[in-house]
Amino acid sequence: MAPSRSWLSISADSHFSLGNIPFGIITSRDSQNEKRPAVAIGDYVLDLRAFAAGNGFSALSSFKDHLSVLSQPTLNAFAALGRPVHREVREYLQEIFSDATSHPDILKDNAGLKKSALLPKHETKTHLPMQIGDYTDFYAGLNHAFNVGTMFRGPANALQPNYKHVPIGYHGRASSVVISGTPIRRPNGQILLDPTADPKVPTFSPCRRLDIELELGCFMCNGNEMGEPIPIKKAADSIFGFVLMNDWSARDIQMWEYVPLGPFNSKNFGTTISAWVVLADALEPFRAPKLANETAILDYLKEDREDTVYDINLEVDLTTAEGNTTTISKTNGKNLLWSFTQMIAHHSIGGCPLATGDLLGSGTISGTGEGDLGSMLEMNQAGKKDIMLAGMEVRKFLKDGDTITIRGICGGEPGAYVGFGECTGTIKSAVVLT
Amino acid sequence: MAPSRSWLSISADSHFSLGNIPFGIITSRDSQNEKRPAVAIGDYVLDLRAFAAGNGFSALSSFKDHLSVLSQPTLNAFAALGRPVHREVREYLQEIFSDATSHPDILKDNAGLKKSALLPKHETKTHLPMQIGDYTDFYAGLNHAFNVGTMFRGPANALQPNYKHVPIGYHGRASSVVISGTPIRRPNGQILLDPTADPKVPTFSPCRRLDIELELGCFMCNGNEMGEPIPIKKAADSIFGFVLMNDWSARDIQMWEYVPLGPFNSKNFGTTISAWVVLADALEPFRAPKLANETAILDYLKEDREDTVYDINLEVDLTTAEGNTTTISKTNGKNLLWSFTQMIAHHSIGGCPLATGDLLGSGTISGTGEGDLGSMLEMNQAGKKDIMLAGMEVRKFLKDGDTITIRGICGGEPGAYVGFGECTGTIKSAVVLT
Repeated sequence: MAPSRSWLSISADSHFSLGNIPFGIITSRDSQNEKRPAVAIGDYVLDLRAFAAGNGFSALSSFKDHLSVLSQPTLNAFAALGRPVHREVREYLQEIFSDATSHPDILKDNAGLKKSALLPKHETKTHLPMQIGDYTDFYAGLNHAFNVGTMFRGPANALQPNYKHVPIGYHGRASSVVISGTPIRRPNGQILLDPTADPKVPTFSPCRRLDIELELGCFMCNGNEMGEPIPIKKAADSIFGFVLMNDWSARDIQMWEYVPLGPFNSKNFGTTISAWVVLADALEPFRAPKLANETAILDYLKEDREDTVYDINLEVDLTTAEGNTTTISKTNGKNLLWSFTQMIAHHSIGGCPLATGDLLGSGTISGTGEGDLGSMLEMNQAGKKDIMLAGMEVRKFLKDGDTITIRGICGGEPGAYVGFGECTGTIKSAVVLT
Repeated sequence: MAPSRSWLSISADSHFSLGNIPFGIITSRDSQNEKRPAVAIGDYVLDLRAFAAGNGFSALSSFKDHLSVLSQPTLNAFAALGRPVHREVREYLQEIFSDATSHPDILKDNAGLKKSALLPKHETKTHLPMQIGDYTDFYAGLNHAFNVGTMFRGPANALQPNYKHVPIGYHGRASSVVISGTPIRRPNGQILLDPTADPKVPTFSPCRRLDIELELGCFMCNGNEMGEPIPIKKAADSIFGFVLMNDWSARDIQMWEYVPLGPFNSKNFGTTISAWVVLADALEPFRAPKLANETAILDYLKEDREDTVYDINLEVDLTTAEGNTTTISKTNGKNLLWSFTQMIAHHSIGGCPLATGDLLGSGTISGTGEGDLGSMLEMNQAGKKDIMLAGMEVRKFLKDGDTITIRGICGGEPGAYVGFGECTGTIKSAVVLT
């Protein structure tokens, strides 16, 4: 159990309560080129390199041989130490920040170390937390798959015959995963203006149907040798933690390019993730059952409990260039048919090697109602309907200058929230080719 | 022009003539844990770290500030120096090995450096030449696309409407790219034994339709910032060199999983590449026109010359566990509708960032005849026909113990071949899950 109070002043609505302790990579004003690990707590970050250098880990003897991982520019080395170590370090930091800490000399009463290691968050900048090896995007959001399938094939045939047997996924583009706050340029590409024409002739154009996909991302802390699957019972040991993700999508480019090998340029111009990796342990209290699957699944996907997804309240805001903000979706991380542990078991069942730093996306998370959809394609019913915004504006898809901000938070008790912070990006106009 | 003769004895049928000078990563018996760059020449490799340490580059002053790249365990740092540097180094090494070298003191008459740097190839081991960032597999083999499309939709609709407009590609799995010689384990997975059943219920099974895909791979030496496309006129500057590739494919797993997001586990259990990167410059003399495209393509894909693919004679051998070898295909690298420069222009047109070490696959290369097909699926006509092997054996797909060896070679003149060596892998039986 996380201790409930800290000697540090943490506002009751903070995403980064003492029960969270998420990990990230920062630079600070004093050392802008030195990326290093940190944890977020309230309105502060604890610079772990500085904390270690100031003997902050002196009361955690099991970690003393691993301090070098805190001088790395990514979390990969820390993650690779494995979940028991993440747990020890997180619980140790919770103790250090606790009102009742038995080591007040380490930080609470140590003005020097507080000054060097405990930095106001607004004076730091976050960076990609992991060096991403491979990025895989799944399609585990049943309601999204059903909604999109209904648009194209009607409700009776909305889901493909494989959908409830296979955690469908595809290989994404690791190089285009960017940290929250990075501007996203509208892609140019081939689009088919008249799908009924014969022959079909594409037009070169900036994307006209630029969309979002609200997802959860899962970072892996370790993986498997090629040829040796990860059994589902051990899959949770491979999970480092979670982030929010916006898998920006160019629907018109996708429609023309995706047959027969799947989405390509429609998905590789930018995928935004939130900065702070919420450890799997921090989400334990918020376990929830995944969506019911009446289909008999194969043994390698069977789990011994149903509560293998998380009750995370998710929100999507759209802010116009003029500054008007509308919450265009409120949904929940429970809306998944497959858990990340099932995704890992499936991904490796044929022998594919997974590794520290791999990023898995959940697929778009939508509910079943009107205000709880994870993509604009669903909100506008395939382009038929306007999405109403504050300030008398409407959208079908994103305009240049629009900002999308995703937030995710667990827990109902002020002072004990476990949140992800923000995952945000603003659309820049397309490159003009000369 | 490459000088035509070397003081080193190089057999006339060698893939690694003085006109080639391909780059790779080796270890040797003396230093098994020290991966380092080398070039292949005849039956030898020149250990570039040792060559540099022994002042081998003393007559190439422009390179003297870059020698540290030759102590790296991959070629990424060397590649990132750019094509003008690759060209200088290759031409310098050709001069050093030339009969008429003006620097005989550097290697030819330097018994000490010959001993330390010029190693018999059979005493060395090759490793993955690059740290692969992202791997993308294209589908530029027109004949393959047509042959496979014909099986499923008949010849009139064999090619999708987008095929001749878009260099179709999908994101592959970088972590499963392995060096020639690595065993490939038959994947387990979900397959549909009776595609006509209703409802469709998959079976868990070792793949029963394990196939090859004969491809060329292209390594990139540099890339682009996110949001800034690589114009086709500059795309060749991003190419480091080429390898042979076997994109092992599980056809039965693919058939069940690939709708709607494309191939996944059917392709991520292993992709084999040859060890030696043949530089783009070495292939210049073997430029050839790509396959004709009567379709009007968009400007960003237009090239100012047609000879942007290469005349590479390709062969595929299947060797059974009993040791009988049959050449099951002879085809040519010219059988592409799109060049790698077009693939790069397309890949980046929406802003996707490409980078040093990225690997691009051509897609399966097939001719139009019977003996020149790049996959067993085409040879067996979707499972209908036996592929005849030496020793009275037949195959439809691969059996455990089968070895596939791809070779590629350019040029018709003994003593002046530019070849890729071998790309080989042996099938191991599937994991038995307990």
